[in-house]
Amino acid sequence: MRISELSRRSGVPGATIKFYLREGLLPPGRATAATQAEYSEVHLRRLRLIRALIGVRGLTVNATREVLTAVSEHEGDLHQVLGLVLGARPVNREEEPQGGLGSSEVNALVEQMGWQVSAHAPARRVIAETLESLRSLGADYSWRTLLPYAELARQTAVLDLDQLEDTDDSVEQAERALLLTVLLEPALLALRRMAQENESAARHGD
Amino acid sequence: MRISELSRRSGVPGATIKFYLREGLLPPGRATAATQAEYSEVHLRRLRLIRALIGVRGLTVNATREVLTAVSEHEGDLHQVLGLVLGARPVNREEEPQGGLGSSEVNALVEQMGWQVSAHAPARRVIAETLESLRSLGADYSWRTLLPYAELARQTAVLDLDQLEDTDDSVEQAERALLLTVLLEPALLALRRMAQENESAARHGD
Repeated sequence: MRISELSRRSGVPGATIKFYLREGLLPPGRATAATQAEYSEVHLRRLRLIRALIGVRGLTVNATREVLTAVSEHEGDLHQVLGLVLGARPVNREEEPQGGLGSSEVNALVEQMGWQVSAHAPARRVIAETLESLRSLGADYSWRTLLPYAELARQTAVLDLDQLEDTDDSVEQAERALLLTVLLEPALLALRRMAQENESAARHGD
Repeated sequence: MRISELSRRSGVPGATIKFYLREGLLPPGRATAATQAEYSEVHLRRLRLIRALIGVRGLTVNATREVLTAVSEHEGDLHQVLGLVLGARPVNREEEPQGGLGSSEVNALVEQMGWQVSAHAPARRVIAETLESLRSLGADYSWRTLLPYAELARQTAVLDLDQLEDTDDSVEQAERALLLTVLLEPALLALRRMAQENESAARHGD
């Protein structure tokens, strides 16, 4: 297909596609004339992933290029690809912090759940900080209070991963993982708010 | 107790407590001398709620005063109190939008779950917008795809509400509901990320 059709099917303006080509985020099309090239479904999928990395995860053009290169290098290895696009795994090994993130409480939680989670997953720090804030505001909260929530998170992750199983294309899986993880976050919190309202009505409403 | 002890036990600076007193967010203490007053546990609990409304939910001083007044008027009615502090229920009836938020898809989801959720809950709009964005980015997603997530949200809300049952004090319940709902949000998303990493490792890791 030409750039115009690539633009129409992806919803990305032609000028933006040309910019991605110049920046090396998109590989060149197959030249059909001195000033014309033909683009394929591979370009379309990769364009969608670029848009998700920049627009949804908020990466810079340079960071996006690094992630795309790493995703190509790990073609077929869904676990690596997910780690890369969701940010659990540093693109460059040098970025990896030395001691690991989180706290002994988070380690206890992860161990109790029997989870394999890398020592530098940013999620570890988020949980450690949340427990700190809750306690500093006077709430009686420990990692054990989070255990039943962790079990529900485990079931949520099973739903998430099930939705990535029906394709083998790592670029497509990377894009879907980003959309389903990042875009779904506000909706999952909104579902919890609605469920709270319902539960509260069922217990205490008129 | 004196202001100094109220400050020590709440972690709120004395000058801030005096500001809340002047602004009418905190009721005056019992006067014990011309320039001295005695404060009680009621003040401490209310101070914690003020801090949560301003610091955690990000309300202005005026909005905080309105919520506090409404919470006092609904003493003992946990369902109303939760709606007020979590923002599902407008403090003033005039703020209530006419047609309700969300979309027919969100109505279908709520109906299928058998949930009681007010027509103006902001969560409805969040879900409608998420479904829109996912589709605009090419994902094949409808309210039915959200159903298993809604069931897990229902179980999460049961855990949430269980933690509010062991006190009858509506100011305390309001504060706890805010902390547990708003502060727990990043931790719940972090648990999901860790669970995804684990699930991905279990399915595809070495």
